[in-house]
Amino acid sequence: MARRTQRFHTVGDGSGVDDTGKFFPEEVALALRNKGMPLEGLRYPITPTGMHYLLVHFDVPEVDTASWRLHIGGLVGKTLSLSLNDLKARPAVSMPVTMECAGNGRAQMSPRSISQPWMKGEAIGNAEWTGTPLAPLLTEARLDSTTIDVVFTGADRGVQGDAVQFYQRSLGIAEATRDEVMLAYAMNGRPLEPHHGAPLRLLVPGWFGMTSVKWLVSIEAIDREFDGYQQVCAYRYTDDPDDPGEPVSLIRGRALMAPPGIPDFLTRTRLVEAGSVTLAGRAWAGRSDILRVEVSADDGATWHEARLGERVGEYSWREWSWEWEARPGPHTLCVRATDAEGNVQPDSQWNLQGVGNNMAQRVDVIVEEVIG
Amino acid sequence: MARRTQRFHTVGDGSGVDDTGKFFPEEVALALRNKGMPLEGLRYPITPTGMHYLLVHFDVPEVDTASWRLHIGGLVGKTLSLSLNDLKARPAVSMPVTMECAGNGRAQMSPRSISQPWMKGEAIGNAEWTGTPLAPLLTEARLDSTTIDVVFTGADRGVQGDAVQFYQRSLGIAEATRDEVMLAYAMNGRPLEPHHGAPLRLLVPGWFGMTSVKWLVSIEAIDREFDGYQQVCAYRYTDDPDDPGEPVSLIRGRALMAPPGIPDFLTRTRLVEAGSVTLAGRAWAGRSDILRVEVSADDGATWHEARLGERVGEYSWREWSWEWEARPGPHTLCVRATDAEGNVQPDSQWNLQGVGNNMAQRVDVIVEEVIG
Repeated sequence: MARRTQRFHTVGDGSGVDDTGKFFPEEVALALRNKGMPLEGLRYPITPTGMHYLLVHFDVPEVDTASWRLHIGGLVGKTLSLSLNDLKARPAVSMPVTMECAGNGRAQMSPRSISQPWMKGEAIGNAEWTGTPLAPLLTEARLDSTTIDVVFTGADRGVQGDAVQFYQRSLGIAEATRDEVMLAYAMNGRPLEPHHGAPLRLLVPGWFGMTSVKWLVSIEAIDREFDGYQQVCAYRYTDDPDDPGEPVSLIRGRALMAPPGIPDFLTRTRLVEAGSVTLAGRAWAGRSDILRVEVSADDGATWHEARLGERVGEYSWREWSWEWEARPGPHTLCVRATDAEGNVQPDSQWNLQGVGNNMAQRVDVIVEEVIG
Repeated sequence: MARRTQRFHTVGDGSGVDDTGKFFPEEVALALRNKGMPLEGLRYPITPTGMHYLLVHFDVPEVDTASWRLHIGGLVGKTLSLSLNDLKARPAVSMPVTMECAGNGRAQMSPRSISQPWMKGEAIGNAEWTGTPLAPLLTEARLDSTTIDVVFTGADRGVQGDAVQFYQRSLGIAEATRDEVMLAYAMNGRPLEPHHGAPLRLLVPGWFGMTSVKWLVSIEAIDREFDGYQQVCAYRYTDDPDDPGEPVSLIRGRALMAPPGIPDFLTRTRLVEAGSVTLAGRAWAGRSDILRVEVSADDGATWHEARLGERVGEYSWREWSWEWEARPGPHTLCVRATDAEGNVQPDSQWNLQGVGNNMAQRVDVIVEEVIG
């Protein structure tokens, strides 16, 4: 699969990172293709479809739903080939799921990894997904007892690390057969739009988004650990190009605030009117839950506990809010979450690929007596 | 409205342009908030809702549809206050409209204007919009004969050029009363999503997108030329900060190609298999039409006339295609349109705000005998 020749131009000095404070055109081109959720979207418990974050590794593939089939094979007693109607005829489940890109906040790290430059925590969304559970399908296919990994292949094809590939990820058998893992054909009550994986995508609640393979065409049981590019090269916590590191998996705890007031167009600095201001947003921790959300109005010098709202669903975010008495002048607002295991969002963080960043959010505002 | 004090930090050297070849974090943050149409989306005659380009000047505002009213006033004989149901009860029209951001391709100019850094021509879309024509509403309100401009105000508020403002644009009376101008409440057969202007937006077919004010709350007739920030400061063709320049208005002719083959993840360079390759895309020219589309496979040294398909609608794009015999090696593919008035897309272009760019598209590809 891999090729050793360098076919494409190098971005930057070839180290894969940059610390000049400015961005390469290739990073901007990725930012324009992929989609962040503007943070004012935190006001919606269920993210409107077109506001949900989206990362497309290669191109949105052309898939003809009428002729499309999902193949389930490999180490199985019975190979399955299923149409979309076959899948829709099976038991359906719907659930809200907070999905987040593993690279969310990548561009806040320094030096930053040169890739999709998520910057403000915008690589999130909380849609209601509808599909059919995966486990009963694997049971029906009679997975061999020697199965170690289940490999999911999407229809999107491209080159990464100079390897030509369809986008592929795997799950260990214990994860793949969990109750909440589903094959999703609808988002917010409507058929998937093409860029969200139509006609079918994997959905793995609690995991970062790279696992929820879009445009799913094949599920294959294998008796070894999958060694595809997206599993062993990409999505690793590593400090060094020669260290394989640890795989990225579950979503970490994070709270985000909908920036208060109104924005300046170019700098996105906020202008807030003095007085009582409700700061609010959402917090989530993948498969875990949120124990506490804290807010600071003085760049992290002092912290105040926020009120927590109800969780939208078992794999979904919950609202938080805190009343701030805003006094004129510049302020840096911060928010951080603590998950059910007691992990607090850090002030700073770094790894080579810029993944799993859950640094506390910082929002610059200028408070004025009267805005106008 | 305007303030002369500098409240926000300066981006770059304060000139508003940059020619270092790298981008500021503020530009990347805008690219992440706003949304481009990935160019493989050119395959769809009607752009799926979530793939359509989107530029939000300030924040997506919170609008309560139940209490929302559209106010029509100013120099009118009869002030109107209309609910969404009032508007839906009026005659409805649906039409596909190719919409394009005035800043599309801004980042291709050198030096580039520091703003939303559209780069690849992705600030486009062709949705089917449904709404009610504006002209009969203006007739019902009995516009005064002294009316010069009709001012459209959105609910989104922010700061630009250090002026606190709701987003506002105007049209001269002759433009505002054209048959195709509508107040749109649906996109692709569904109610507008919040970020596309719910519950109601102006839609002005043929004009660049800045005119189609989202989250419309007020329409006001005035007896002078409107001098709001978005009319007299922004959206001007100017070479110099002291020159007011000419206003941006109608969409210019442009052809875009869906890049062939498969992409490299980071550089987005395309890998194409040798042999016969159908190059295809769409072309449009706002209120005008497309006379000709030409394709080059040698970076513009020689040009070949493409086949043109049917126009999707009077204000909508048409397909083009051309068969290319791809031979191994690196190639730069180009496409350019000629509009009905004979204007050909230029090779290069510049203005201070980076608006109205319709330079011919260039796509780098590497052809290999076999991809793998």
